[in-house]
Order: sequence, then C-alpha cells, then structure tokens
Amino acid sequence: MVKQERAARTRETLIRSAAEVFDRDGFCSASLTAISSIAGVSNGALYFHFASKSALADAVEAAALTRLLAVTRAELPAGASHVQLLIDVTHHLADALRGDVVLRAGFALSGELSRPARVVLRDHWRCWVEEALERAEMEGEFRTEVAAQDVVTAVVAATVGFEVLSMQDAMWLSATAVSRFWRLLLPTVVPAALLVDLEVGGT
Amino acid sequence: MVKQERAARTRETLIRSAAEVFDRDGFCSASLTAISSIAGVSNGALYFHFASKSALADAVEAAALTRLLAVTRAELPAGASHVQLLIDVTHHLADALRGDVVLRAGFALSGELSRPARVVLRDHWRCWVEEALERAEMEGEFRTEVAAQDVVTAVVAATVGFEVLSMQDAMWLSATAVSRFWRLLLPTVVPAALLVDLEVGGT
Repeated sequence: MVKQERAARTRETLIRSAAEVFDRDGFCSASLTAISSIAGVSNGALYFHFASKSALADAVEAAALTRLLAVTRAELPAGASHVQLLIDVTHHLADALRGDVVLRAGFALSGELSRPARVVLRDHWRCWVEEALERAEMEGEFRTEVAAQDVVTAVVAATVGFEVLSMQDAMWLSATAVSRFWRLLLPTVVPAALLVDLEVGGT
Repeated sequence: MVKQERAARTRETLIRSAAEVFDRDGFCSASLTAISSIAGVSNGALYFHFASKSALADAVEAAALTRLLAVTRAELPAGASHVQLLIDVTHHLADALRGDVVLRAGFALSGELSRPARVVLRDHWRCWVEEALERAEMEGEFRTEVAAQDVVTAVVAATVGFEVLSMQDAMWLSATAVSRFWRLLLPTVVPAALLVDLEVGGT
C-alpha cells in the first residue's frame, strides 16, 4: 500500500473510532486515548492527523454530512409522489442512524453546547425537509387547506425527536415508530385520492 | 433572617445559577467559578452546599422535576376532554421551557451523555403523555381505528423535538409551532364531533 493510501485509511479509522467514543461517552468526556486505542494507533499517530478533539469532531461532522446527503439524494421514482419520497427518506434516515455510528455521532454533535458545531446536521435535515415539502406543495400533493409550513414543523420536530430519543432506546428509530407517525399525519395532509397510494412503511 | 433560611436561599440561588450556566455552556464546559460568581457567593460557599458539579446537576434535575410536575398537575376542567387537557399541557410546557431556565436545563441534562441523569425529565414527560392518552382512550375520545400507542409515539417525538430544537431557536417553543402540530394531528385522532370543540392553541 502506498504511503498516502495508508494515511487516508488511518484517518478514516480514526474518524470512525472517534464517532464510536462520542456516541458512547459524549464529546466532552471522550478520551483521545480511547479513540486511538480503538483505532489501533498511537496517540502520536492520532495527533499527526488531528490537532485536537475538536478537529476530530469537525471531521466526524463532515463525514456524517456526506452520509446524510447520500440518504437525501434519493431520486423520485417514476410515478411516485414527493410525499412518498419524503416518507421513504425518513425511513432510510432512521435505518442509517441505527446502523451508522458516524451519522449518529454527527447528529448528536449538533446538540453539543460545549462545542459550536461547524456542520449542524439537524439544520441540514430541516432544510431538506422544507425543500421536499415545497416541491410536494407545488405539485399539488397537499389538501388545499393545508399550509406547507405546518407540515414542515410537525415533520422536523418529530424526526429530530426520534433521533434524540433513540440515544436512550433504539426502538425510536424502528420502522414501526416512523410508520406510526406517518399513519397519523398523512390523512390530514394529502387528499384521499393520493392517500390510498402512499405506503407509510416506505416503498 | 435565621441561618437555615439564609442557607436555603443560597442553595436555591446556586441551583438557578447552575441552570443558567448549564443552559449556556452545557454541563461539561460549565465552570463552578462562573456558577458561584453569578450566584454572588464564594467557591467555598458553593462547595459547602454541593460537593461537585454533578451534585449541582442532580439538584437542577430535582428542581426541574418539581416544575414539570407543576405543569402536568393541571386539573381537567369541568366538561373538558382529556385530549384538550393534553393540548393545554403541551402549551404550558412550551411556555415554561421558554421562561424557566431551571426546567430547560433539567430537560437538556437528560441528553447529556457524559453524566448519567438521576432524574430523566424526558422519561417523566413520556410517562405523563402515555397516561394522559390512556385516559383519553378509556373515555372514548379517539376514533375507533386509532391506536393510542401511535398517538403516544407522535406526541412524545414531536414535543421532545420542539424542546431540543429550541436550544438553537426559541421559535420552536412558540404557541404557533405547538398549535401547528396539533392542527395536523387531531383530525386523524379524534371524531369530528369532538374535534369542533378542541382549541389547538389551548384554552
């Protein structure tokens, strides 16, 4: 393996190890020695790549954003509604948060008061939901009496709630929990003709 | 003022000052010197009352629980539905979180990974919502096809989401935001005959 390649791999391993320790202990209590030990490198090697714990957190957030963008980059399948795409993406995000410690740590760092986040994942998520719902509204997928901003408020609050509650109990990121929310919300938001085609559990 | 009374006042002042600093800087970065300085007492006086920062956090959580119980202790007014009581209490909780730094810091400490919470306010809130919705279900206030557990999931997730998002923008605790959520949720949950009597903005 050439030298640059090995350095890039070590860097990736350190980011993942940092995410594991942030996810378990929180940013503040996270020990750099625990991170380098999980990564299987010396403290010196860690400092070669990252000048500080905060620089590691920046790297975790940047890596988490890449993963969030991979989730939200989903294409609208032919014939599908924008609302269905939003439902699908919320399920994919819940799955990804369950399985991917880097994404989970990146989101959790958004709520860390002791260190201002560079990349606030919860803000990126909110913006994506806003845009997805604006597209749905423009395509006439909402009941006429529904204000898109009401839907944004409910969807952003509930999904951030799922993410935060899952720190104590992963059940909150189950397909059951996410489907429950959509089952209650959708009948008020979309016309009956669209509702029959929607899969609250995702497609 | 007798000595015990003065000591009790100093203790209360320290709890409030700690809540202010936790709310601003997070538990981890909170400095005991900043807390004693805001309280207008010496570090020695702080240590006389609280052995550690963690003991102060315990006291903030206990004080916050008392305030949460004051919010959820609301009585059902004559003729009102259990669903209306729940709506009212979510508005009172949002108001209280906006105005009361001790309650806010107590909730935020629930999400602090670096220190296991003794009193997890988010759990207390979840349990209260569960009980309130069980009572509503027993009184026949839900549509027959609605499962109470679906409503619990949506209400707990959204309200915890409001609380967490408000750390960055207090707008999330506005009456507008809370009303938006109820306006979308209620038509699916309660029969039309009850819906017309409900005030999404609280009574």
